[in-house]
Amino acid sequence: MLQSLQKVSFEDRAVPKLRDAENDVRVHIEQTGICGSDVHYWQRGRIGDFILTSPIVLGHESSGTIVEVGTKVRNVKVGDRVAIEPGVPCRRCDYCRSGSYNLCADTVFAATPPHDGTLQKYYTVASDYVYPIPAHMSSEEGALVEPVAVAVQICKVAELKAGQKIVVFGCGPIGVLCQAVAKAAGATKVIGVDISESRAQFARDFAADEVYINKPRLAQGQDPMEAARAVGERIVADFGLGEGADVVLECTGAEPCIQAGVFAARKGGMFVQAGMGKENVVFPITAACIRALTLKGSIRYSTGCYPEAVRLIAEGKIQPSKLITHRFEFGDAEKAFEVVKQAQENTLKVIIAGVKNET
Amino acid sequence: MLQSLQKVSFEDRAVPKLRDAENDVRVHIEQTGICGSDVHYWQRGRIGDFILTSPIVLGHESSGTIVEVGTKVRNVKVGDRVAIEPGVPCRRCDYCRSGSYNLCADTVFAATPPHDGTLQKYYTVASDYVYPIPAHMSSEEGALVEPVAVAVQICKVAELKAGQKIVVFGCGPIGVLCQAVAKAAGATKVIGVDISESRAQFARDFAADEVYINKPRLAQGQDPMEAARAVGERIVADFGLGEGADVVLECTGAEPCIQAGVFAARKGGMFVQAGMGKENVVFPITAACIRALTLKGSIRYSTGCYPEAVRLIAEGKIQPSKLITHRFEFGDAEKAFEVVKQAQENTLKVIIAGVKNET
Amino acid sequence: MLQSLQKVSFEDRAVPKLRDAENDVRVHIEQTGICGSDVHYWQRGRIGDFILTSPIVLGHESSGTIVEVGTKVRNVKVGDRVAIEPGVPCRRCDYCRSGSYNLCADTVFAATPPHDGTLQKYYTVASDYVYPIPAHMSSEEGALVEPVAVAVQICKVAELKAGQKIVVFGCGPIGVLCQAVAKAAGATKVIGVDISESRAQFARDFAADEVYINKPRLAQGQDPMEAARAVGERIVADFGLGEGADVVLECTGAEPCIQAGVFAARKGGMFVQAGMGKENVVFPITAACIRALTLKGSIRYSTGCYPEAVRLIAEGKIQPSKLITHRFEFGDAEKAFEVVKQAQENTLKVIIAGVKNET
Amino acid sequence: MLQSLQKVSFEDRAVPKLRDAENDVRVHIEQTGICGSDVHYWQRGRIGDFILTSPIVLGHESSGTIVEVGTKVRNVKVGDRVAIEPGVPCRRCDYCRSGSYNLCADTVFAATPPHDGTLQKYYTVASDYVYPIPAHMSSEEGALVEPVAVAVQICKVAELKAGQKIVVFGCGPIGVLCQAVAKAAGATKVIGVDISESRAQFARDFAADEVYINKPRLAQGQDPMEAARAVGERIVADFGLGEGADVVLECTGAEPCIQAGVFAARKGGMFVQAGMGKENVVFPITAACIRALTLKGSIRYSTGCYPEAVRLIAEGKIQPSKLITHRFEFGDAEKAFEVVKQAQENTLKVIIAGVKNET
Repeated sequence: MLQSLQKVSFEDRAVPKLRDAENDVRVHIEQTGICGSDVHYWQRGRIGDFILTSPIVLGHESSGTIVEVGTKVRNVKVGDRVAIEPGVPCRRCDYCRSGSYNLCADTVFAATPPHDGTLQKYYTVASDYVYPIPAHMSSEEGALVEPVAVAVQICKVAELKAGQKIVVFGCGPIGVLCQAVAKAAGATKVIGVDISESRAQFARDFAADEVYINKPRLAQGQDPMEAARAVGERIVADFGLGEGADVVLECTGAEPCIQAGVFAARKGGMFVQAGMGKENVVFPITAACIRALTLKGSIRYSTGCYPEAVRLIAEGKIQPSKLITHRFEFGDAEKAFEVVKQAQENTLKVIIAGVKNET
Repeated sequence: MLQSLQKVSFEDRAVPKLRDAENDVRVHIEQTGICGSDVHYWQRGRIGDFILTSPIVLGHESSGTIVEVGTKVRNVKVGDRVAIEPGVPCRRCDYCRSGSYNLCADTVFAATPPHDGTLQKYYTVASDYVYPIPAHMSSEEGALVEPVAVAVQICKVAELKAGQKIVVFGCGPIGVLCQAVAKAAGATKVIGVDISESRAQFARDFAADEVYINKPRLAQGQDPMEAARAVGERIVADFGLGEGADVVLECTGAEPCIQAGVFAARKGGMFVQAGMGKENVVFPITAACIRALTLKGSIRYSTGCYPEAVRLIAEGKIQPSKLITHRFEFGDAEKAFEVVKQAQENTLKVIIAGVKNET
Repeated sequence: MLQSLQKVSFEDRAVPKLRDAENDVRVHIEQTGICGSDVHYWQRGRIGDFILTSPIVLGHESSGTIVEVGTKVRNVKVGDRVAIEPGVPCRRCDYCRSGSYNLCADTVFAATPPHDGTLQKYYTVASDYVYPIPAHMSSEEGALVEPVAVAVQICKVAELKAGQKIVVFGCGPIGVLCQAVAKAAGATKVIGVDISESRAQFARDFAADEVYINKPRLAQGQDPMEAARAVGERIVADFGLGEGADVVLECTGAEPCIQAGVFAARKGGMFVQAGMGKENVVFPITAACIRALTLKGSIRYSTGCYPEAVRLIAEGKIQPSKLITHRFEFGDAEKAFEVVKQAQENTLKVIIAGVKNET
Repeated sequence: MLQSLQKVSFEDRAVPKLRDAENDVRVHIEQTGICGSDVHYWQRGRIGDFILTSPIVLGHESSGTIVEVGTKVRNVKVGDRVAIEPGVPCRRCDYCRSGSYNLCADTVFAATPPHDGTLQKYYTVASDYVYPIPAHMSSEEGALVEPVAVAVQICKVAELKAGQKIVVFGCGPIGVLCQAVAKAAGATKVIGVDISESRAQFARDFAADEVYINKPRLAQGQDPMEAARAVGERIVADFGLGEGADVVLECTGAEPCIQAGVFAARKGGMFVQAGMGKENVVFPITAACIRALTLKGSIRYSTGCYPEAVRLIAEGKIQPSKLITHRFEFGDAEKAFEVVKQAQENTLKVIIAGVKNET
């Protein structure tokens, strides 16, 4: 667990009880993917308003096997293998009641202070936030349902329709998964954009129809917005997008990408901001307005994202295990965090096996 | 007519013929409102990509009486008094065919180079772009259907629902008309925001439930974004908006207002950018994203805006003639432009009477 | 309470405990409106799949005062006067999680077998299903929030927009409340339709712009569908609806009204079925299809309906107490049911006062 | 051409001129599919309000090569091979202007009285209603863009989303094409329903995941609605649809299918009526209402349907030429109509080659 800034430790704990004896389940954790946000807490102790003030367990991308169920649980039973959705909302606020539980301010979200994450032997959670995975899906794939569900939500926010042309900024894990989800939804052309040739190459092999390698260097004296506009327009021209992309999915949070994205979209198009970077960016508001774009932020998941992600993996439409570049045993968790922290170009997804059941 | 930069003149012209002898109508112009964009061409010769290269007639907010109709025209007849929608789209591009004619690149828009505007004795236009006004509506009100239709479109883009709490940045003509349209659509609380006390006072008298006077001075060393955030949060707190405004309509184009607007909106809320100001602004993209806002640009009008604007005026729900602060005869048109150019705080709407029919 | 078919009795019960000691509240019931469904259970013992097999307490349209709150309740406190939403859903199924809790199969709905209703001294319920009413709203109005919320939901399902022309079949309580909600949402023309002149007259006085009295007698040998079509077309012609109504709200469940409604709607229009009558009706499917209508069923309420109904009453936009034709003391409840059962033309809303607190 | 009821003839005509010398094109027709509606006019002389009063040319599913273009035409040039959309709307009514041109009452629709169809050597039409097809698409496929576009519109009306479970009633041409469009849009399970084993078999081979053969015989004394309900529920149970189908596409117009469809849909689901049969059917209105279904009619096409249909064929996602069971030369057109009229189980699509260019 994360004791304090940059200090991790292991701890023996009693087997946790179900907080809600009727509706909770206890899961034996089998695999856990590591995400940038885990490393963020490890290194900086905060993300936005969430601040680490006492030790917490990290990890929120996990799969496992049900070992205990509450008295009223019907959707899963002991022995079922499941993917775990890491945030359980309050179910009572207007956001929850109207179907936007991703906006609930009282969500208990794994590994978001002060809530413990899933890098434990056991994790207890509400039964409707675990989702059975079929026998032919590995536990690694089960853990990677989480980032696939993030991509499903991004594409849901974007209201994708079959036959659209889609530009995805970013060929990291979320970017390439968005590209794959978009292809599975019948997109006719999906363009991945990245500054890294190796990531772009991976994206092309994974799901994208085409990739654009965005050389970020400005010419001397070049206005950054003019450069971004040129990138956006070049993507439209190079890939025959006509009036522009129907949908832009921005998965980097990088200012030049956000800017270029506006100029890559067609009039009346959709722009979804999913990546998180600088708090504030210089934004081409007049261009966005004249183009009558719809811009939306995507955050977490909503009802149906996890089942849809499980389905896409189970049907072979998306193969997220191709993203795994590093595997660690539970005892080597700190090494795993170190790898993610270094963020080398060829690191995509790092995964940590759970504590074996017999220990 | 506008001969060239800052030079206007009068000109005798032959009575224009219907370009489409089947479907056009000719209107004798009776009243024309002056808009900032007219003055913009007069003073600077361009707006965005539209550049003045040869003389054009200004004016695009007009009413008049039908004096000639094409052979197939059925919706109006000679003698009908009408409001004129100034932009006629191509009807053939995908935008036109799918109901987004405001995005048509081939629109013939009055007083947008190279197309002549309505400050003439006669104006010819497609019959489906004139809308009858009832006998009890004045020609001045007929001319002001245009800015009301702009407000109707903004509120349509915002997908207003009855019972919402709405913050409108700007208490100029478009701002106060948006406030009135929102009230007519059943909004429970409409807050107008402006830096001018007299404009705010007008807004309160016109339609807003409450107004907020935004003192734009930054404290020494204060971060502009922090100041904007404080303004947004103060509006929410002062007017009991709870989680924030359901809808923010930004009608100023001013950077601090755009920024404050993001912080005035509730999570999952709607933000419509209608004002045009700086091309690029510093934008709180992370806040917009975490709040899962939907941001949309509003531009011109769409089908139904003009009839709805006529209805709102005809039913007395909106009284746009209250906005008129200055009236000029046709021969004094240049003075009218001068008044608009000076843009004094107490100038709202300037209107120019048409050439009398007997002249 | 309803002991069995057509048998009611009074019963002394212990003060009920909060089922959820953290999140429930206990309400002292002050007023309860009687609805056709209560009488239905009383007389026939079933509605659809809901069958009376053991005694239940009737009543589900109630207001009262909070007398006890769970340990985590924050939205209300003891002494608050509230309207009670009668159905609390499971919060865990996909319908609940996606914002359609009105479709939850596990809803605990007051007075729907086997759940007790609100015609008791005290009723306990989840705290987020009670809604504070302001001091100037009477307890009778608080009880009538329920039918207003039904009308709000119907209009929400219909996706009302300001400026629409709306035909409402039925001038009973739900019909006239829909008419009032539509007017408050900025409808330009609301036409009420009923077979009863006195009801139609009430509708005109209450909120409708116009009413149509539908004489249901068929001419000898007339095809019922042709008669219905004629009624629909006559409504369009008589009230100048042009292409037809933008929205038809069917609040009767009567076959001829459903049929006429299809012909009263414009192409591309909206038809909401809210009334419940015969299970199956002869339906003009080809006309509905060629007109490209959208038909939707409305059932119960969704998030926001109760607060919106409270607001409409509190702001004086709707005055539901005008609907009350009969008032009874708690001890005379059976008489109240008898009045509702007789369903005379001039009976609109019957209301029963609660057990006084000192008893 | 169709001279009068059941009488067809051939006629020599002058090469037609462009009606709009600026915007029309002339197409040399190469292939034309025959549709039930053509035969309907041939045999009965009317469909609904469209009545044959003078001779018309039949045919509306055609492809060909551009042989003449108007002076302003830019989207195609002489020599381009195109699919022809058969209905050109007025472009001026509110339906056209708001993107619902399929509802335009003044549409000039090929082979709908009094307008001539495409079974001619040349057909002139507005340039934005022809769509280029790539070199690798055959002219037969070009003609079959029409029924594919019908299916695209049905699926667009249904607002398909990836991952949905879809039941399609009918395995005729439109039914199987809907099944294919739904699969291309990422549907997880598409169930085709038909009474014919051979059609069902074709559907399974073509695109459906599963098929259900609906034996239409009622048990003695069985209520038809109960039988329909049983069919709907059996489809849900047999194919593991859980709560029911997300979307039902009704492509038969047959009363028992419409009825069964309501019971096959999940609560909150979508039901699109696309087939045309009896004017009026017995409809389970209460079930539809309690399930809170959305029912919509689909009619003709809208902007984007033709390009999307061309794309689906060009990318090999749909292979409509598999539907062709009979091919005829132009001179044998009457035999083609005869085959369609007989409507044998194994007849899917009948196609007629155009008049050769050298004749």
